[in-house]
Amino acid sequence: MKIGLFGFGCVGQGLWKVLHETKGVKAEIGRICIKNAEKPRPLPAHFFTTNPDDILNDPDIDIVVELIDDAETAFRLVSAALKQGKSVVTANKKMIAHHLPELHALQQKTGASLLYEGACCASIPIIRNLEEYYDNDLLTSVEGIFNGTTNYILSKVFEENKTFDEALQLAQENGFAESDPRLDLEGFDPKYKLCILLLHAFGVFVEPEAVFHFGIHRLNAFDAEFARRRGGSLKLVARCYRQGDQVGAYCIPRFVPGNHRYASVRNEYNAVTLESAFSEQQVFVGKGAGDKPTGCAVLSDISALRYQYKYEYRKWQQNGSFFNTSDTELQLYVRYSTGASVADADFTEITERFMSGDTHYTIGRIPVRKLQRAAWLSDPRVSVVEIN
Amino acid sequence: MKIGLFGFGCVGQGLWKVLHETKGVKAEIGRICIKNAEKPRPLPAHFFTTNPDDILNDPDIDIVVELIDDAETAFRLVSAALKQGKSVVTANKKMIAHHLPELHALQQKTGASLLYEGACCASIPIIRNLEEYYDNDLLTSVEGIFNGTTNYILSKVFEENKTFDEALQLAQENGFAESDPRLDLEGFDPKYKLCILLLHAFGVFVEPEAVFHFGIHRLNAFDAEFARRRGGSLKLVARCYRQGDQVGAYCIPRFVPGNHRYASVRNEYNAVTLESAFSEQQVFVGKGAGDKPTGCAVLSDISALRYQYKYEYRKWQQNGSFFNTSDTELQLYVRYSTGASVADADFTEITERFMSGDTHYTIGRIPVRKLQRAAWLSDPRVSVVEIN
Repeated sequence: MKIGLFGFGCVGQGLWKVLHETKGVKAEIGRICIKNAEKPRPLPAHFFTTNPDDILNDPDIDIVVELIDDAETAFRLVSAALKQGKSVVTANKKMIAHHLPELHALQQKTGASLLYEGACCASIPIIRNLEEYYDNDLLTSVEGIFNGTTNYILSKVFEENKTFDEALQLAQENGFAESDPRLDLEGFDPKYKLCILLLHAFGVFVEPEAVFHFGIHRLNAFDAEFARRRGGSLKLVARCYRQGDQVGAYCIPRFVPGNHRYASVRNEYNAVTLESAFSEQQVFVGKGAGDKPTGCAVLSDISALRYQYKYEYRKWQQNGSFFNTSDTELQLYVRYSTGASVADADFTEITERFMSGDTHYTIGRIPVRKLQRAAWLSDPRVSVVEIN
Repeated sequence: MKIGLFGFGCVGQGLWKVLHETKGVKAEIGRICIKNAEKPRPLPAHFFTTNPDDILNDPDIDIVVELIDDAETAFRLVSAALKQGKSVVTANKKMIAHHLPELHALQQKTGASLLYEGACCASIPIIRNLEEYYDNDLLTSVEGIFNGTTNYILSKVFEENKTFDEALQLAQENGFAESDPRLDLEGFDPKYKLCILLLHAFGVFVEPEAVFHFGIHRLNAFDAEFARRRGGSLKLVARCYRQGDQVGAYCIPRFVPGNHRYASVRNEYNAVTLESAFSEQQVFVGKGAGDKPTGCAVLSDISALRYQYKYEYRKWQQNGSFFNTSDTELQLYVRYSTGASVADADFTEITERFMSGDTHYTIGRIPVRKLQRAAWLSDPRVSVVEIN
């Protein structure tokens, strides 16, 4: 098997190294397409090209591995490779989440395989398990800590008493933050993963725009202290679920008690919890960020291509479900400063109010539908946390 | 797909129910072979037979599901079914662990598929993941809490302050203890699972007799207090690992600190931790005992047979490793009563000694090779715990 590689950053270089270390996977990298020809590279020049066609049109290359940053360029390259009948491995969650219907159709049309395990929680084999192991319809929910960067930041805040600013800086120094930190902090990244899992868990195509998400960017020392006093910490949790034939999804910071299974999921580790009628809770924990864990998933995808593995999208084939989060009610802590106009009318029920100096909070139930439309949520003086 | 079922206990009945509830798996149970024809059954009489040949010789039956208690009878039935070219699903770990070489050879010879996900940690899809996802040779260890009954007992002791006797009784009342409780308590059951995982993780056939195991049957209130004072609890942990081309394995109670990932693995839940060069730690958590979690695994195996799935035993094919635990040293707490003659000479190093009244303990390092031969370990006044 000959691989054409797009991008030669950390993950790409790690992949090169491990392909030479492992006996199990008989595949070699034939050509590497890079953007910047001037950068010094650790391999001989003949491996590199700046022309994508040197990979796309090379009949000796069976597998295209796409590891570049830009989602739209990635989509063009991946589409072109599939159209050439080449198998593709990618870890680009933003690209996949925004183009799932097209990518699915392209696979159906060309018969080529597109694998993207590295796009969801890096080293955790969640897509493969949803495809292969949980392919009966007993699954009721998939949720978890899907973003390594925010989990790293929250761990530093709760376990090492760093401020949120210090923790973000540490994450950046350790290479965990994306080039655009908003993708992580505001919860876009876990939402992209949620969109991918919605298809493999429940068989529905959902646009990222349709899913409510709220990140950790507004959390402050008061919120952290609130969680500590309740005997726990905060985690950014993304969740999708089925009730009857309706499927819902959202992503929001959640209060987690100290003895909860997520409490020991620290730093860049991710966790995915599956609930099913028969096996109840199943939890997968593993590194969810960093070049090595992502490289590990990419390698396993390459390895699966030796056996012509492809996603069958069986849940989509069986599916009679539709996406509709709106009626779901969340029990929320809404913290705000004097002057921010949190709409009491959006609450179905209010159970607690607090005020001290400039800091207020309200605890109560709000339907996700109202959160999606709530103008007050865009006020930077407001933060929300799901509590139980 | 038509199923012939051997045994109609809890798991069998659960399987019947769920096959009628799920849309995903198009399979029906055609015939059920039972031992006792007199017992009242919840299904019409025409489903039942006491003659195995009514299943084995029925050409309409594609899949044999074996869910009986007795390991040797199970082996005969499973072998006969494979020889008839039928696919087989079983959850009988004792049978599999004792007959892996024959069962492997039978699959090679007949081309029939034998699946047994339910035999290892019930609902946790560990065999499938080792086969499919971790099939490169970067894996360095597989360990975890492989026995739901002992974990249930230890949870009751540490979280609800039950005595070991009360906790065992609770486990039996809740249906977690096997018909022979020694299999669980003395660590045979997790050792059987270890033998199965040794083949799928590292490609070696290992007889159960070759693996050192020690259960929780000797633990007492003093040992529990020792763990509590160190800020943690005790878990029965089975472990296999590779160092160079040598593979080792053992099963022993382990001290687990309060913030450890295993601390939140409670009651009948199991956990499996994989360590690999590239993805570091991966943890799978799920229910490891009970009819429903086992039924869930059996169902997923049946479902996989729709796609002619079989284990490839790739690690065995690539393998250059051999089994040799002997040089591995464990850091142990050895508790004993006056009169029990723990051999100091077996310790490579002793770091702590304690004596109070009739209770003594020694902490130090002992090679597994010496534990395997230590006569003093069979003294009922001695217990051991691995500590770090």
